[in-house]
Amino acid sequence: MSRAIDETHDASRRSWVESANRAGCDFPLQNLPFGIFRRRGADEPPRAGVAIGDRIVDVTACQTTGLFTDSAATAAEACTEPTLNRLMALGPDAASALRRELWRLLLDGDERVRAHADWETRLVPGMATAELFCPAEIGDFTDFFSSLHHATNAGRLFRPDNPVLPNYRHVPVGYHGRASSVVVGGTAIRRPAGQTMADDSDQPVFGPTKALDYEAELGFFVGRGNALGSPRDIRDADDCLFGMCLVNDWSARDIQKWEARPLGPFLAKSFATSVSPWIVTFEALAPFRVPPSARPEGDPAPLAYLDHGPASERAGVDVRIEAYVSTRNMRASDIPPARLSLGHARDLYWTPGQLLTHHASNGCDMHPGDLMGSGTVSGPERENEGCLLELTRGGREPVTLPGGETRRFLADGDEVILKGYCEAEGFARIGFGECRARILPAQANS
Amino acid sequence: MSRAIDETHDASRRSWVESANRAGCDFPLQNLPFGIFRRRGADEPPRAGVAIGDRIVDVTACQTTGLFTDSAATAAEACTEPTLNRLMALGPDAASALRRELWRLLLDGDERVRAHADWETRLVPGMATAELFCPAEIGDFTDFFSSLHHATNAGRLFRPDNPVLPNYRHVPVGYHGRASSVVVGGTAIRRPAGQTMADDSDQPVFGPTKALDYEAELGFFVGRGNALGSPRDIRDADDCLFGMCLVNDWSARDIQKWEARPLGPFLAKSFATSVSPWIVTFEALAPFRVPPSARPEGDPAPLAYLDHGPASERAGVDVRIEAYVSTRNMRASDIPPARLSLGHARDLYWTPGQLLTHHASNGCDMHPGDLMGSGTVSGPERENEGCLLELTRGGREPVTLPGGETRRFLADGDEVILKGYCEAEGFARIGFGECRARILPAQANS
Repeated sequence: MSRAIDETHDASRRSWVESANRAGCDFPLQNLPFGIFRRRGADEPPRAGVAIGDRIVDVTACQTTGLFTDSAATAAEACTEPTLNRLMALGPDAASALRRELWRLLLDGDERVRAHADWETRLVPGMATAELFCPAEIGDFTDFFSSLHHATNAGRLFRPDNPVLPNYRHVPVGYHGRASSVVVGGTAIRRPAGQTMADDSDQPVFGPTKALDYEAELGFFVGRGNALGSPRDIRDADDCLFGMCLVNDWSARDIQKWEARPLGPFLAKSFATSVSPWIVTFEALAPFRVPPSARPEGDPAPLAYLDHGPASERAGVDVRIEAYVSTRNMRASDIPPARLSLGHARDLYWTPGQLLTHHASNGCDMHPGDLMGSGTVSGPERENEGCLLELTRGGREPVTLPGGETRRFLADGDEVILKGYCEAEGFARIGFGECRARILPAQANS
Repeated sequence: MSRAIDETHDASRRSWVESANRAGCDFPLQNLPFGIFRRRGADEPPRAGVAIGDRIVDVTACQTTGLFTDSAATAAEACTEPTLNRLMALGPDAASALRRELWRLLLDGDERVRAHADWETRLVPGMATAELFCPAEIGDFTDFFSSLHHATNAGRLFRPDNPVLPNYRHVPVGYHGRASSVVVGGTAIRRPAGQTMADDSDQPVFGPTKALDYEAELGFFVGRGNALGSPRDIRDADDCLFGMCLVNDWSARDIQKWEARPLGPFLAKSFATSVSPWIVTFEALAPFRVPPSARPEGDPAPLAYLDHGPASERAGVDVRIEAYVSTRNMRASDIPPARLSLGHARDLYWTPGQLLTHHASNGCDMHPGDLMGSGTVSGPERENEGCLLELTRGGREPVTLPGGETRRFLADGDEVILKGYCEAEGFARIGFGECRARILPAQANS
């Protein structure tokens, strides 16, 4: 019910928050993503907010002011917490009721918020005055490998004759990542040290990575959980996903290459993972649900437990994800960030619902706030490759940036900016905001 | 200071709790491991207790009764919590101060506890009357692969010509496991379903695993944490480990074989991991610290960041871990559990301090209550092999149990019991108790 296309998606509706109506705005009236914020410098606890244009609705302040009806009260009460976990746990209907009330309150012509003289500082403060936090306490973080294009391009570097292993087309391959080191966009990333083995050496060394990479991914936050020993049915999977964000799965390729056999990536990834601060709900994404990527000729159909059946028509999601880089020199020369790649979630081999269902298929318990990454979102063309490993062919073919610098991998001071958005004929553009972070040099003693 | 051998390890000292003095008791006066308990059926919150013989010291009740001096007060206060995380975060000196006061209170001749008429029900209740809980809220669970014998035996099944990969002797290989599905011993384990591919097929199937295995491991709980971006020095590593437990890393070998390339084990492990309820502190283990296993001739020395230096003499730990199985038929025929294996932690290739230091070497933040598993503790002999995969050569050579049954892998109704203990000339035997769990049939619809 709550995820059908309805008046909240109507592109003709505008908000009285003027910035929300500007072309290219990530947070129009039709979006209303959730995050955790605090007014910078204020002695107040972090709590949930909803992005609208260049402002944030302080849900707690609005609730205290009596702006919500009873139907939104449960969700609004959960928004007093310093993470979205409790809101996520309530399931999609509660968040939907709140989103609907916010939509009405923010709709052009509605005066209820502006009736309060201090609305600009207290009820809907400017985003520029806010500090943003990691939106959830992430109990477990799992990263998948759901782009066949990425699996092929990355696999070719390690196994030229056998890039994609036989299980790939049957199993949504994934692995557990590190939950503790997931940080919100804006947090600087320290270049990690680790063990590496040069191709021409038989003695590994320990030191700062020379192959620091980004991976442009989408993140799926779990809403309602499942108990240990109780798998999910794929028909219920979508209702158990709260929303999506951008994920930068930072990777040290030289460490990865040396450590990852036979148990998979570990320290090459666990030094940091960035998530964007705003979670776009699956309700807001309703107009952008699409059939999953057509499987290449001859590929097997998914096994029954991963088969969406007729719901397949809307099981995928059409989100674009862009990666930009801005170097120290580019900033000094006022050169704007350069786009490295543009990926499409519609190109993924596995849907969010398939990832969730597979993950719980062995009875693994998943909880509100758990995060699943899509894996690098790459596509069939060169410009669709969502990490430097692919773009530079493992570092062999450097990319040239505006201003003439080249990069095989990331340099200290580089800033990586992920952006995401959805566009479809007849609907308002929905954005994910940015996931931005700058590389700090390695620790002096490493 | 707090981890030297001292009077609390003196084997000649006895407790007035008579059961603690019996030969073979896991919890003598010299041990005093921490756990989380509640009196069965009582309307009271779970809280920390300390095992002594067949009883549990209710630390909170003793504190309320005024039995501790100020030096133990900080640790005792942390023991009111429903997990040990806060106690772990305090660092080894706080837990040591409490352990010392408990040692004196429980020492033969001390009358302070027994001066309270209700001591048997309130201050030191019987373990049989208690419900035991997972001792910590585990933020992240990491499993290592630190037995070269296990790596060789398991590797041989997958890569007969190349069982141990070149990185093994340089890198403490590990991977992230699932934290949410770590359960305390005693919790029944549901046989998981998953995708498998038979050797003679080209079409995978989804269904209950036919190759359910145990893995006998040791667990290391992190005490004081490190901040993101701040690696640890190996000289400090031991002080950042709180204590040890037994871990059964349940594994579905058929699922593992099909899913694990290239990103490592995932659903083959994440359906459940069992931990024993009592955490033995590194202070109690002081008499059993030994040099790490001698590296085979020609193996490289650890890189500098993993080199214990002179502290290497006590960097290993000499714990024995046994695995027993009891089938439904054995129980019906009053046949006692059969021992499948006996492993020695002194045979591990990497020390607990090396695992912790390596894990944080990329700046990954680790927190009080995080759990690291050793990986299967196997040794050079057939009887030292700590899982059925090894013991049955991948299921090809079934083991015969008393009563005549055979097992390639675990059957429904089988109960696996891990036991751990330390023995050394001149010291009291220190035990880990048991980590016990029974296999439930797969869900009917899977």
